[in-house]
Amino acid sequence: MEQYRIEPGKKFKLADFSADDLGDFDGKKQKGNEKLAENRADLVELQELLYSEHKHRLLIVLQAMDGGGKDGTIRSVFEGVNPQGVRIASFKTPTQMELDHDYLWRIHSQTPGKGEIVVFNRSQYEDVLVVRVHNLVPREVWKKRYQQINDFERQLSEEGTTILKFFLNISLEEQKQRFLERLEMPQKRWKFNPGDLAERKLWPEYMKAFEEAIQKTSTKWAPWYVVPANRNWYRNLVVSSVIVDTLKAMKMEYPNPAIDVEAFKKQLAEG
Amino acid sequence: MEQYRIEPGKKFKLADFSADDLGDFDGKKQKGNEKLAENRADLVELQELLYSEHKHRLLIVLQAMDGGGKDGTIRSVFEGVNPQGVRIASFKTPTQMELDHDYLWRIHSQTPGKGEIVVFNRSQYEDVLVVRVHNLVPREVWKKRYQQINDFERQLSEEGTTILKFFLNISLEEQKQRFLERLEMPQKRWKFNPGDLAERKLWPEYMKAFEEAIQKTSTKWAPWYVVPANRNWYRNLVVSSVIVDTLKAMKMEYPNPAIDVEAFKKQLAEG
Repeated sequence: MEQYRIEPGKKFKLADFSADDLGDFDGKKQKGNEKLAENRADLVELQELLYSEHKHRLLIVLQAMDGGGKDGTIRSVFEGVNPQGVRIASFKTPTQMELDHDYLWRIHSQTPGKGEIVVFNRSQYEDVLVVRVHNLVPREVWKKRYQQINDFERQLSEEGTTILKFFLNISLEEQKQRFLERLEMPQKRWKFNPGDLAERKLWPEYMKAFEEAIQKTSTKWAPWYVVPANRNWYRNLVVSSVIVDTLKAMKMEYPNPAIDVEAFKKQLAEG
Repeated sequence: MEQYRIEPGKKFKLADFSADDLGDFDGKKQKGNEKLAENRADLVELQELLYSEHKHRLLIVLQAMDGGGKDGTIRSVFEGVNPQGVRIASFKTPTQMELDHDYLWRIHSQTPGKGEIVVFNRSQYEDVLVVRVHNLVPREVWKKRYQQINDFERQLSEEGTTILKFFLNISLEEQKQRFLERLEMPQKRWKFNPGDLAERKLWPEYMKAFEEAIQKTSTKWAPWYVVPANRNWYRNLVVSSVIVDTLKAMKMEYPNPAIDVEAFKKQLAEG
């Protein structure tokens, strides 16, 4: 999955990454879903270990255009994982109270604690994406944010948080199909937002903003992965594989507290 | 499942409720787990509906003695449910900041929003259970809390929150077996807390505290269910059945926003 990780400092062109790519995966949807099921089983175990070890923190950032599949990724990748150790933080249009603070204020308060996995559905990156595209703050303000975000993420990382960032990359044509599906299926219509059509017209501006954000903030301590996301099954496979590999590399172990097991067993046997 | 609901105002004796009870369920573990799988499938759909309708809020309170199975219930009942609409709030020993406020302060901040299911792993009831048993506040203080909690829950309910409260009822003998299992299995040893043995000695005091709390706070708007919990499969079945029945009774429907679908489809087809 390393082919989708953006190397820090290297020139990066979003156009070089196809939303239809299947990498070197030698199979189709069925085989992909079988592998996904294996990843899920691994994830259930690894999360249990993370939770009981109570040492590492894992932060997963999801960003995408509307219809890119953030919700579907969360549902599919974390199916079956103990909800007690996984928290989803969704960042919507900021409230007045949030706007009254700096843009990282609401973000910092939602970062994971020890033993916890937190998934950001949207994130601090909105403040260099939608904010930039719509000129919500002057250029000289958002320009400084790449460095600020890198510094913020480095501090989290140095204090023990592992950070993974995923851009779910769909094509303009695929977005159209997904919007049409929302309009056509009564059970999905509630997800259709007329405002999304106006955003769609700004596609090139968004791509430019994503490209610069990913280029400037893919770091050793908080790498970006550009995930081919036109096919849901492959998107889920890539995201879950990166998460599983990252957790495995932590070499976690169940805590073995130094207690006198036999003495406690005797005590229990008595009453 | 109504046999486990405590009727408001009726005399209630915990001793009348067997932790081994199987009600009128005509089957064993395997059949119970089949029914649980059906409930889970229902719950996945109902939660999706709750989330998309964005109207109701559901608060589920779990209380039990140590080893009573709160964690296991959460894991089992909510397996497969979209983590985006379900949040677990665990209330541990209060921090200094929490103690500096009234006991409902930290509770209120964690109540569900529209479309959300929140599970309280422990709750405001700790303030009439452990607090009472250990005399952490004077009797005249905790005595007032039953009414305060009823008033608090009534306000939540009147503002649109549905509340379900479960006491997972295990026997003293079953607790011993579960503590022994934690000691014997290396993967479970991290859950063993030597302090639990001291609490175990206070079993009768806890039972008295639970009995009074349940008697005084099982209300029409926030009923208590006393769940036989010696068998995990039956406990899961009871809890999930009550939740599913409660959600079904909400008669929810997918929102059908008044939008001109054809006009939007035309607009999309153009670009």
